[in-house]
Amino acid sequence: MFDRELAEKAGANLEQVRRSRPLVHNITNFVVMNCTANALLAIGASPVMAHAKDEVEEMVALAGALVLNIGTLSLEWIDSMIRAGKRANEMEIPIILDPVGSGATSMRTASAKRLIRELSIRVIRGNGSEVLSLAESGAGTKGVDSVHGVDEAKEAAGELARELGTTLAITGAVDLVTDGRRQLRVHNGHELMQSVTGTGCTATAIIGAFLAVDKDPVRATATALAYFGLAGEKAAEKADGPGSYQVALLDALYKITPGQLTEGARIQKEPD
Amino acid sequence: MFDRELAEKAGANLEQVRRSRPLVHNITNFVVMNCTANALLAIGASPVMAHAKDEVEEMVALAGALVLNIGTLSLEWIDSMIRAGKRANEMEIPIILDPVGSGATSMRTASAKRLIRELSIRVIRGNGSEVLSLAESGAGTKGVDSVHGVDEAKEAAGELARELGTTLAITGAVDLVTDGRRQLRVHNGHELMQSVTGTGCTATAIIGAFLAVDKDPVRATATALAYFGLAGEKAAEKADGPGSYQVALLDALYKITPGQLTEGARIQKEPD
Amino acid sequence: MFDRELAEKAGANLEQVRRSRPLVHNITNFVVMNCTANALLAIGASPVMAHAKDEVEEMVALAGALVLNIGTLSLEWIDSMIRAGKRANEMEIPIILDPVGSGATSMRTASAKRLIRELSIRVIRGNGSEVLSLAESGAGTKGVDSVHGVDEAKEAAGELARELGTTLAITGAVDLVTDGRRQLRVHNGHELMQSVTGTGCTATAIIGAFLAVDKDPVRATATALAYFGLAGEKAAEKADGPGSYQVALLDALYKITPGQLTEGARIQKEPD
Repeated sequence: MFDRELAEKAGANLEQVRRSRPLVHNITNFVVMNCTANALLAIGASPVMAHAKDEVEEMVALAGALVLNIGTLSLEWIDSMIRAGKRANEMEIPIILDPVGSGATSMRTASAKRLIRELSIRVIRGNGSEVLSLAESGAGTKGVDSVHGVDEAKEAAGELARELGTTLAITGAVDLVTDGRRQLRVHNGHELMQSVTGTGCTATAIIGAFLAVDKDPVRATATALAYFGLAGEKAAEKADGPGSYQVALLDALYKITPGQLTEGARIQKEPD
Repeated sequence: MFDRELAEKAGANLEQVRRSRPLVHNITNFVVMNCTANALLAIGASPVMAHAKDEVEEMVALAGALVLNIGTLSLEWIDSMIRAGKRANEMEIPIILDPVGSGATSMRTASAKRLIRELSIRVIRGNGSEVLSLAESGAGTKGVDSVHGVDEAKEAAGELARELGTTLAITGAVDLVTDGRRQLRVHNGHELMQSVTGTGCTATAIIGAFLAVDKDPVRATATALAYFGLAGEKAAEKADGPGSYQVALLDALYKITPGQLTEGARIQKEPD
Repeated sequence: MFDRELAEKAGANLEQVRRSRPLVHNITNFVVMNCTANALLAIGASPVMAHAKDEVEEMVALAGALVLNIGTLSLEWIDSMIRAGKRANEMEIPIILDPVGSGATSMRTASAKRLIRELSIRVIRGNGSEVLSLAESGAGTKGVDSVHGVDEAKEAAGELARELGTTLAITGAVDLVTDGRRQLRVHNGHELMQSVTGTGCTATAIIGAFLAVDKDPVRATATALAYFGLAGEKAAEKADGPGSYQVALLDALYKITPGQLTEGARIQKEPD
């Protein structure tokens, strides 16, 4: 059921992140800045948070990936994201977008769509409602109304990925990764991850680090999600609630070896 | 000494929060955003942080309660708080205010008073100095100078609650909750809570969640404080310092059952 | 090898911080606000975070030290830092600067230099690249290119400290503290400190608290770094990765007694 080659690539990507320590430039929300930075350090990457319009272009030029997250956005921050993103595009630095809360307010949906329109974004990660709210056409709309999980989102996601020309990751009990042609499912993870704020944002940042070392966005995304999900499984063994779970999650990200990831990754190729 | 009916209501409110998972909209300070979100998740509520003036009205319309906290305020944020608060008032969504540092600088005191003047606020929670700094009349002034604890603040608080037409919660070793007619005291808590930043802000957010399910502000506030205080007691059993205490506090909030809260709540009706 | 008098002063400074509970005013970055506040509470100081231009002058007037940190700066925040700093200078309240990322972007380097030019700063703490990027002359430039550790930075640091008329702390495996005349080395610390975000910023804030009780900046800085480093050593005994390390670090800061610090501090006077 699970693909051995992708599991091996997961381990290899982790090893490569630890060896090359890519700088990951985050323009992200206030809630998760600290835990995102700690997660990136724990996996072996090098995080930087910088949002001032006067420095983002210079900062992103040093980075291996750019993470854009609209969780506590304001319009000034979106301007900085556009500016950093354009420079990233010029330099072919991969961009990943986390459209937190897109669909909940019109400002968030419009901001996410503006980023997608003005930038070339390699991966978008969110939950079903967030991702499917990004459709300009009706592709996602029907999906949004009916989405309860990955299965319901599957068709709409494929159509939307083709429309946007990007890779989409819809995370949930099982994660779906698709570029509209290939679909992968990641079965790693634990339900306690939902009880800690910012785990979705952390997943996005880890995908950013993997994009810095793997040019195939579908594969980079699925292997990153398998890694984060495996850490979530290991953390659950030590947790006594969401406080200790959050602590154990960072420890697990730090301790998982490439070999353990290859053994533990549960990535499934979708039958056509 | 402790009121059984209120203890049972504490358990019932907790059960109701976990069942209905109210969305709690926070416009709060940078220091506590992460721990506030985690605490709200741990109790079973659904947190959102959003401060942009362009979206707060739309966001608060989805919420069961609005939490305003001036801990790292700037004037733009106050404008967003006013905007969100007016919409909340129109929709009868309860507002709770945490006037962090009111009394310390004139900008903070003036901002807190402006929020109180322009909005209808259901509950204000702070320490003695913060709460009593809010008096336009001399009601609180004398209090501020002499406050060392809840006892000294008692009379001034009752007078101020009547003046402001709201419920006040002054938290300390024993918490005082009053609307100027009724007074309740909450005896739960632990001294280690003071060694972790943002525990006051967390208390405020939990009161917000309880206001979403209990229309009586005095009762909602006292039951929420009993719950948080009981978690503080349980956390102390596992802590080896403020770092592990913070972790154990989240775990305890998550694990306390409605039945345990009913058994452990120590809420006292003030003799007239 | 290690200086006994300085070790005793470390213990005495810690005792004095816990007795006088100095208010430490931080204008710092979003990533570390929470952990900085918690560290200051854990050591016995009283933290406040406030950045609005309308209140920083009033707030700093209440403080025993002012901590400026440019980690997620924007130009408005620099203006607030200047404003707070000028008031601090008038009142002879010590200022410590953490030039996070100086050298990485021209905005950061220029902002750090502006703060140094317009304010009288008692201590600057950073890593080798950050500190040496501050040279207006060529003093640091050569250093930046070649810095791998404290040893390489030593000569450039002394020259730069004289040029800037301040005390510099370059932290790493061994910390170097110099005002251009005296040099101290602090041998406390643990490599896991690098795996947690904001440990440098926390070191800066703790130095701030020590500056509030010790008028000798070289000594205050070295004793604060010995304390933080000792906590880092003790935390390592309990950690299973960076998550649990961060927790144990706060616990250790809280639990270390002045006597333990005197026994554990490893501060070395530099031979001339």
